[in-house]
Amino acid sequence: MTTPPNRSHGRKSISATLTPQDLMAARPRLKGAWTAKVLTLFPKAFPGVLGESLTGKALDEGLWALEAMDLRSFGVGKHRNVDDTPAGGGAGMVLRPDVLGRAIDAARAGTPEAPEDWPIVYLSPRGAPFTQAWARAWSRARGVTLLCGRFEGVDQRVLDHYPIEEVSLGDFVLTGGELAAQAMIDATVRLLPGVLGNAASTEEESFSRGLLEHPQYTRPAVWKGRAIPEVLMSGHHGQIEAWRREQAEALTRARRPDLWAARKP
Amino acid sequence: MTTPPNRSHGRKSISATLTPQDLMAARPRLKGAWTAKVLTLFPKAFPGVLGESLTGKALDEGLWALEAMDLRSFGVGKHRNVDDTPAGGGAGMVLRPDVLGRAIDAARAGTPEAPEDWPIVYLSPRGAPFTQAWARAWSRARGVTLLCGRFEGVDQRVLDHYPIEEVSLGDFVLTGGELAAQAMIDATVRLLPGVLGNAASTEEESFSRGLLEHPQYTRPAVWKGRAIPEVLMSGHHGQIEAWRREQAEALTRARRPDLWAARKP
Repeated sequence: MTTPPNRSHGRKSISATLTPQDLMAARPRLKGAWTAKVLTLFPKAFPGVLGESLTGKALDEGLWALEAMDLRSFGVGKHRNVDDTPAGGGAGMVLRPDVLGRAIDAARAGTPEAPEDWPIVYLSPRGAPFTQAWARAWSRARGVTLLCGRFEGVDQRVLDHYPIEEVSLGDFVLTGGELAAQAMIDATVRLLPGVLGNAASTEEESFSRGLLEHPQYTRPAVWKGRAIPEVLMSGHHGQIEAWRREQAEALTRARRPDLWAARKP
Repeated sequence: MTTPPNRSHGRKSISATLTPQDLMAARPRLKGAWTAKVLTLFPKAFPGVLGESLTGKALDEGLWALEAMDLRSFGVGKHRNVDDTPAGGGAGMVLRPDVLGRAIDAARAGTPEAPEDWPIVYLSPRGAPFTQAWARAWSRARGVTLLCGRFEGVDQRVLDHYPIEEVSLGDFVLTGGELAAQAMIDATVRLLPGVLGNAASTEEESFSRGLLEHPQYTRPAVWKGRAIPEVLMSGHHGQIEAWRREQAEALTRARRPDLWAARKP
């Protein structure tokens, strides 16, 4: 007697299989479209926010693709166990190297071997902090594979065996890597050609020039006794540009002296 | 003839109303439970990943509450417009101050006025970088209201008028604030009493001691020719502790000299 591997899932809409769950099933997929493969215990949390707005529209149009692969389907034994207690003792559970190895091998099948063409990433607060430069580099690759940890982390031997980069969303602790994966995918996908309706809006945003963005105003002209600054209503493009630049520089100096010091002239 | 406010939404399952969409409808809600209110154009993106795993279990148990409030329901005119072109010109659209004002007023009703008891936060790459210290502070408040921007941002007058803190998930640009909100809620909720099954696991994690976490290992004892370090199999708790501390310190020095320099002795 064998227990079906998806017995423990509860929800009928999600099945555990040994092939990637292709969220693009009902979507067109342009040949060679940039692809994010996500190894996770919570495949139904995808696409999540990525299915909305501009990233969602681009996903529907096949400008990028998303494969959420269920780690559980690579589990051990009839209960498809994925974790075990830490060697040497301690709280929590650690993801097993054999389970992760099988999942990573499955994700690597058919992808380029060079890390710059297809990075393999473990989302971990121990990793290098994710920045816009990472998003730019990943957007120039053909795709990325993201391993989401849970519990106390993953067996170190997996990180030693594969060419895996550890990347951190920031100096805080999440219950798992899924939200970090979604945020990094979002930051990357919006840089892919055709995803943002108006290419100019990427250019002008924070970090593109190493400056925080200047304040923005829109209608109504007066709100709660507060008027839009006169210069913005002047129609004088040179003065408007100068004012915005000045505001962006002042804001950056005041709030982020680290960015101000690091900017390129 | 009037157009129903939810005409433009497309999906029948989401309706635009002038009252918060209470995602807790089918859930118990413990009196005074910590609450996240999220002002967003994409309420159906919530709870997203937060509905899974430990945060999802705690949400189901009423240990915390989530209210996703649809900004569209505070929009202007029969089309419920929320944005307009930037004063002074430029790409993209800016969220209107009158729309945001009504949404923020609705969110503030019945919440404490002191920012330390109930922070109001605008998610923006211009903000202060979110860290574990912010998560700790928010977990001691009674709740938090998070305003998610889209497009080119929000009218500056809203940020000047209300006691709003601008907080950034990191030095990268997202298509909207929703993923930042979810990540910050996750980091905060896991610190609330009763949310993590094992309190010890918060203690031992990265950043709690200003150090990156030591490597972890679990079964099998040998994988792809790689054995678990002998000390972890020794059963000698003192040596294991010393080894882990040494590894955590070496990792922090090598990867994050900034954290190493800033740590408290």
